[in-house]
Amino acid sequence: MEVLDILKKYSAGVDEEIDKSLGTVDPKNLYDASKHLIKAGGKKIRPSLVLLSAEAVGGRTEGAYKTAAAVELIHTFSLIHDDIMDEDEMRRGMPAVHTIWGEPMAILAGDTLFSLAFELVAQTHEEDIPSQQVIKALNTVVDACIKICEGQACDMGFEGKLDVSESEYLNMIYKKTAALIAAATKSGAILGGGSEEQVEALAEYGKLIGMAFQIQDDYLDVVSDAEELGKPVGSDIVEGKMTLMVVHTLSEASAEDKDLLINLLNNSSNNNYNEEEVVEKAINIFNKYGSIDYTRDIALENVEKAKKLLDVVDDSPAKEALSLLADYMLQRSN
Amino acid sequence: MEVLDILKKYSAGVDEEIDKSLGTVDPKNLYDASKHLIKAGGKKIRPSLVLLSAEAVGGRTEGAYKTAAAVELIHTFSLIHDDIMDEDEMRRGMPAVHTIWGEPMAILAGDTLFSLAFELVAQTHEEDIPSQQVIKALNTVVDACIKICEGQACDMGFEGKLDVSESEYLNMIYKKTAALIAAATKSGAILGGGSEEQVEALAEYGKLIGMAFQIQDDYLDVVSDAEELGKPVGSDIVEGKMTLMVVHTLSEASAEDKDLLINLLNNSSNNNYNEEEVVEKAINIFNKYGSIDYTRDIALENVEKAKKLLDVVDDSPAKEALSLLADYMLQRSN
Repeated sequence: MEVLDILKKYSAGVDEEIDKSLGTVDPKNLYDASKHLIKAGGKKIRPSLVLLSAEAVGGRTEGAYKTAAAVELIHTFSLIHDDIMDEDEMRRGMPAVHTIWGEPMAILAGDTLFSLAFELVAQTHEEDIPSQQVIKALNTVVDACIKICEGQACDMGFEGKLDVSESEYLNMIYKKTAALIAAATKSGAILGGGSEEQVEALAEYGKLIGMAFQIQDDYLDVVSDAEELGKPVGSDIVEGKMTLMVVHTLSEASAEDKDLLINLLNNSSNNNYNEEEVVEKAINIFNKYGSIDYTRDIALENVEKAKKLLDVVDDSPAKEALSLLADYMLQRSN
Repeated sequence: MEVLDILKKYSAGVDEEIDKSLGTVDPKNLYDASKHLIKAGGKKIRPSLVLLSAEAVGGRTEGAYKTAAAVELIHTFSLIHDDIMDEDEMRRGMPAVHTIWGEPMAILAGDTLFSLAFELVAQTHEEDIPSQQVIKALNTVVDACIKICEGQACDMGFEGKLDVSESEYLNMIYKKTAALIAAATKSGAILGGGSEEQVEALAEYGKLIGMAFQIQDDYLDVVSDAEELGKPVGSDIVEGKMTLMVVHTLSEASAEDKDLLINLLNNSSNNNYNEEEVVEKAINIFNKYGSIDYTRDIALENVEKAKKLLDVVDDSPAKEALSLLADYMLQRSN
């Protein structure tokens, strides 16, 4: 079974829950703004992970659809607010919410999706799931939301700062990206009635593939071609973004190379390179210190560790799918 | 017992829960921004209503402190985001969060408080409260959050629009202000183990005093003196804000007076009045159609109805306090 088929298998049910949750139409502009990115689609990796995790521990998936939809709404809420904060104008190939409805309505659309997400989790008890499990799932999802906020604050704090350590960087991407993916697999395992060991292992699996997902993003920025990537190669470099390559190089490089890299990332006016030259020179420094291979290896290592953790559940199509999804983190080209 | 003494009785315990919830210090700027308005204080009316409602139905208050703190965090979250949306620069006598930390961090501080609020509700099950009741309280609080977003969107939609009906206006203030107060009393009654009848009556009590609170705000803008109010008399008029006086006058007035009022509220350049004259002329029109008395009567009526609803619980100091708090909605001068 192909990964995209697996995602498709679950996305119809998830979409149905999201549509029900967003069924209100008044006030119209608020709900139009809230639905904008939802309508743009997305692969539904996170909700599929909730459902597959519930299935993998031998549970039924029915009761997990609402929480799966909630996780997708939380992801969407964070995209809408991040785009305002980062002044990004495009998302999922469409104009960002704030560019159409303005920042006030975009803030509110995010808040609405956030509220609806918790409504969905709270409704999970209607699905024959014991209340104790619903509260555990709620705690799991809430914990990820707090981490998303902290991770985004860390990320904003990195701007213009170039003495970020590898562990600070990894902690940031854990909170900003991996925590919600870990909450997806963990809440799924909880709602599926998994043992404590299974719940913890699947939470760790989610964290590891979430980290791999983000690290692969860093890696793709310099190894893909522009067409595959859908944006120019090296745009992270041009934007001076912190990536695992950058933190690794900065910790390994000679003072001279470190200064040169910082100079390139800061896009200082005292270098006269054009963007292409900046990217080329940065990649040369990354390669000199093995940082590109290092990044790929870390992503690969996370995926391998994640797959090992799946031993905690019996063989099943869901387990197989989780294994394929782990590999998929490294196969995607955008 | 004085109302402020009642509020003080509970606020120490609520502050303790909030301090525990906001105990994290990393990332520093995120948590500094999140704590800013909390440190500024506030009367803690909403959390006190949670605790008094739990007590009034004969329940212990211990288990309700976390939800009480959650309601205060939700209120604070909405103030932070509203101030960004409305471009208000002062709050609780201090600079608004976004004026100190910038809009991106203020958005995030609001999101963080929102997340922490749900964490607090989820933690309520540690307090010997049956899970079913925790989930009901969660549903109640979530429902209010959705309404707050809808109410703020309606309010923003009213800007520059002068054909708002009284029922549209009342629906807006219900969602924006009264829904969270109703959620406070309802969740308190749920966590205190109240009967269905008691829960519904206390929810309605909360809604009615919440409406009275906002309507009294409208009323005070034109009948107070500036010193008591802490802002110039008639500032709602100068800002062209929709109030119950405005919607009532617009529905009753002659075409000529209607045009004049719209003209005054729009602060059209084709009137040559200074601010004091604008306020005086608007108040004259309000008085001509009895709209100021009408507004006071509606607020009073809501409070009387609310107090009647308290018959659903036995006499107790908590019931007495709820009755005093209802009256307090009309006594406050700011």
